Amino acid sequence: MDRRKFVKGSLVAAAGMAMARRGLAGPLISTGAKRPNIIIILCDDLGFGDLGCYGSEAIATPNLDRMAGEGIKLTNFYSSAPVCSPSRAGLLTGRYPPRTKITQVLFPSTGVGAVVNTRIVAGGAALALPKDEITVADLMKKAGYATCCLGKWHLGDRSGFRPNDRGFDHYLGLLYSNDMIPLPLWRNGEIVEKSPCNQDLLTGKYADEALWFIKQNQDRPFFLYLAHTFPHQPLHASPDFRGKSKGGLYGDCVEEIDWSAGKILALLAELGLAENTLVIFTSDNGPWYQGNPGYRRGRKNDSFDGGMNVPFLARWPGKIAAGKTSSLMGMNFDLFATSLAVAGAEVPGDRVIDGRNLLPVLCSQAQAGPHERLYYYKGKTLEAVRSQRFKYQLRHYVYYSPVGQAQGPWLFDLEDDPNESYNVSALYPEVFQQFSAEVEDWQKNFGRGMKV
Amino acid sequence: MDRRKFVKGSLVAAAGMAMARRGLAGPLISTGAKRPNIIIILCDDLGFGDLGCYGSEAIATPNLDRMAGEGIKLTNFYSSAPVCSPSRAGLLTGRYPPRTKITQVLFPSTGVGAVVNTRIVAGGAALALPKDEITVADLMKKAGYATCCLGKWHLGDRSGFRPNDRGFDHYLGLLYSNDMIPLPLWRNGEIVEKSPCNQDLLTGKYADEALWFIKQNQDRPFFLYLAHTFPHQPLHASPDFRGKSKGGLYGDCVEEIDWSAGKILALLAELGLAENTLVIFTSDNGPWYQGNPGYRRGRKNDSFDGGMNVPFLARWPGKIAAGKTSSLMGMNFDLFATSLAVAGAEVPGDRVIDGRNLLPVLCSQAQAGPHERLYYYKGKTLEAVRSQRFKYQLRHYVYYSPVGQAQGPWLFDLEDDPNESYNVSALYPEVFQQFSAEVEDWQKNFGRGMKV
Repeated sequence: MDRRKFVKGSLVAAAGMAMARRGLAGPLISTGAKRPNIIIILCDDLGFGDLGCYGSEAIATPNLDRMAGEGIKLTNFYSSAPVCSPSRAGLLTGRYPPRTKITQVLFPSTGVGAVVNTRIVAGGAALALPKDEITVADLMKKAGYATCCLGKWHLGDRSGFRPNDRGFDHYLGLLYSNDMIPLPLWRNGEIVEKSPCNQDLLTGKYADEALWFIKQNQDRPFFLYLAHTFPHQPLHASPDFRGKSKGGLYGDCVEEIDWSAGKILALLAELGLAENTLVIFTSDNGPWYQGNPGYRRGRKNDSFDGGMNVPFLARWPGKIAAGKTSSLMGMNFDLFATSLAVAGAEVPGDRVIDGRNLLPVLCSQAQAGPHERLYYYKGKTLEAVRSQRFKYQLRHYVYYSPVGQAQGPWLFDLEDDPNESYNVSALYPEVFQQFSAEVEDWQKNFGRGMKV
Repeated sequence: MDRRKFVKGSLVAAAGMAMARRGLAGPLISTGAKRPNIIIILCDDLGFGDLGCYGSEAIATPNLDRMAGEGIKLTNFYSSAPVCSPSRAGLLTGRYPPRTKITQVLFPSTGVGAVVNTRIVAGGAALALPKDEITVADLMKKAGYATCCLGKWHLGDRSGFRPNDRGFDHYLGLLYSNDMIPLPLWRNGEIVEKSPCNQDLLTGKYADEALWFIKQNQDRPFFLYLAHTFPHQPLHASPDFRGKSKGGLYGDCVEEIDWSAGKILALLAELGLAENTLVIFTSDNGPWYQGNPGYRRGRKNDSFDGGMNVPFLARWPGKIAAGKTSSLMGMNFDLFATSLAVAGAEVPGDRVIDGRNLLPVLCSQAQAGPHERLYYYKGKTLEAVRSQRFKYQLRHYVYYSPVGQAQGPWLFDLEDDPNESYNVSALYPEVFQQFSAEVEDWQKNFGRGMKV
């Protein structure tokens, strides 16, 4: 399989390096055995209500439902942004997206996209994840892990900013969203299928590559980031899945992703790796034109929960108890610190890292989540803050208004009102005031420690 | 109570007129007794999920919940438009709003509103319900009913176009929405409270007036159209209700409306009128900034169901069986034909009337609803068609799109997908094609029979 040009040298070197397991406390990770593998499966624009285990009656996801049954399901897990690029920047750096200057959706650096990008830069955003940002893959690789990124990257398409430049030994996928032209398929530094690639086969190709990567690295610790191209529009599914779901072509896409997850879980069992592998499944933001946000208000691009509250499953037999559901809060930048904790590596000390290790939550060892507050950014703008049952919405977009497009600040009680339908600021004036004061303080101090 | 200037002369004349009960078949209405009263309670911007009997856990509506338990609840009842004025035009004329030329929200004819109205007229819409339109009140009055409109009118504020000019003997209320300045309170032809009136007390004043009207007319058939100002923004509740609901000030408004409904039902019982009165409760469109659309997609101004699928309760002890729920389809213009059927009067034969008599549905005598198709208009534009479980969405608005703001046509299966999340056009190509052909035909023929 030389076509993959897998960089084995770096792994051999890494395997031999002395591992400093600084900062890992507690009995979660045994230090004697081979360090645990991590697989993060990230969907694109999958909604909170699109999986069977999250209440969907239109889409059949037996593999993910089984994964939920064998692990834990979170109901208050959030993406770090309501759109693709910033959400991915958050996940991979462990930081609120504005710290990384990735605050907008990136476009290809050629053609029409370049024109759009000019506007993005003029707005103060970066066009690629800046080089001084450290990705979780950089650190996992440094810690001796084989690292692989499959699927949508969306954090820079120029040389020096692609996955292989940001800590991933191996890459196969599209460098941006599947509605952005041109659309070549890359494997490491090469285009292996010219634009437009056959999108119908992408999910299957990613699955094949994932299985190959796992087999190749079954004797080493590995970190696999499988960032699906779908169910982002335009929708495509392979002939085996097309026309099968009650959820239309969108459902076909999700059912093929479910199949892919099933293949991965089956291979882990076959190779005897299941008990040494943490598998995580989530989405980069809420649903766009299609897709079901569950009972949440809003969709992709909204700081309402429909735009950022996403499904989250974690499975790790023997470590994570089966069949649990937790309402403790997490955000996708927690996967940075969580992965490092699994690897026994430390988070960088030279910058603000907003993410926290979620393992105590996932392993039911924590009564409280690692965050007292979660901040919802849309672009560079702080739009909302969540604390336990309350959400303070500084501003929010409304469809139709003779007097303008934004209202706020509002206070929502997500326990009584998960749809964010009612402003209860007059009912809880102290809570409202406390949020208001805290937000001012947070905004003032947010810049400190920022590197970009 | 001379302050009300109730026009009794016309009632006396009407009571003596020979009533032609043409067109009333079946055992629903006994011809010997006093003809049944009708009370239509219409909320402004109340969402599908805002009542206890529709699943709300944040707003307590014990009176309406009891009313639902004593009558029937519809789950597929629609407003005839996703905004106020056209929806009211539909309800009162029995016709799709574009037939009446009321396709936009109207503004006051003075001040800033007049400027906005210029644009509305330029768009081809009328600024008041045209004089050649016949309202249900015109016909109920002609049939000998005492007629009363309370609350928001929103179908013209100039002389000749106000409620008293359109079939209502009596009126108290605001002539347009409560966010439109100036805001005087009218009683019949007079301003009884200068702009801005005290909005906190409006719901209570409407209730007082409703009780007075019912008592005054307890010995005659009456038609009461109570069109609440709330929960349209800006929200106001009386001191007795402010700060009481878990749904914030919005919830306070709804709980005060619930109280008002309870007072009306109690008076009917006290006067022995309950069994001779059909009481209907519904909303003019889905929720705006606040309010809960239930599990529906979208809000006010959307042709998604969140904008037009509204709560509907009907109670008529002895005629409507207690505790029923029906998923048969209805639209608010059906209240036109339904009211006439209750009165034993005929619908006009000189124009297209789209509404149908809902009594067979409400009284559980029908296996099917009166509509094979329901058409969702937004302004002058047909945006969607519903037929049984399927909804054909010609176009729909999306929040965020680099390629435009509208997509479609799509096909939704509301049975599997009440949130309208998945386009299943490829799954049901014949259904999709049939809708497509029918819509073309409907659009071509819609103008026929239109009088304005």
